[in-house]
Amino acid sequence: MKHVHHTEVELEEPDEQGIKDVKLRWLITKKDGAKNFAMRLFEIKAGGYTPLHQHDWEHEVFILEGNGVTRDKTGEETFEKGDAIFVPGMEWHQFVNTGKETLKFLCLIPYKE
Amino acid sequence: MKHVHHTEVELEEPDEQGIKDVKLRWLITKKDGAKNFAMRLFEIKAGGYTPLHQHDWEHEVFILEGNGVTRDKTGEETFEKGDAIFVPGMEWHQFVNTGKETLKFLCLIPYKE
Repeated sequence: MKHVHHTEVELEEPDEQGIKDVKLRWLITKKDGAKNFAMRLFEIKAGGYTPLHQHDWEHEVFILEGNGVTRDKTGEETFEKGDAIFVPGMEWHQFVNTGKETLKFLCLIPYKE
Repeated sequence: MKHVHHTEVELEEPDEQGIKDVKLRWLITKKDGAKNFAMRLFEIKAGGYTPLHQHDWEHEVFILEGNGVTRDKTGEETFEKGDAIFVPGMEWHQFVNTGKETLKFLCLIPYKE
């Protein structure tokens, strides 16, 4: 059994275009023996955002702290602490911190389809 | 995109032996198009516990609220809010609420190996 407080896991800065003030921690990965899906924790500063993009894998998201909106190509929707969000594969999506505090959410992704 | 506050999802009582005061919400499932893994939120009252058991699939757990311990056949380990726990397939495990408040955690499981 792996057991760790999320703050003990390195806070990495993704090297990706179209992002602002986004960092993440890979909490549970293949290195731990997790073959099917990975658990990441995102931390986005006030005003920061993930890229508006699409890809063929899904996201399973749970909002831990903070406020923000999800955007696609047609509009946006507010989310709050305690929300679960499912982004199917190939759907456009962006997570934006519109609050004053750091936004923290879990975002899990599959290792295979 | 599915987007729901976890309290909007039905709180179900699992029909399982060896449990006490455990309920769960299936937040993201196959019905939403999630083919690879499911997100559940467990709510365990003070003094409650999941069964001490094993199975061939893994758990990816994140503690949202409350305090407790994980137990296997040899001992126990304390966890707290903000902890990530990975239980590999076939490992014995039990989650016990040893605090005074309701324990809430996410527990994700694969749909296939």
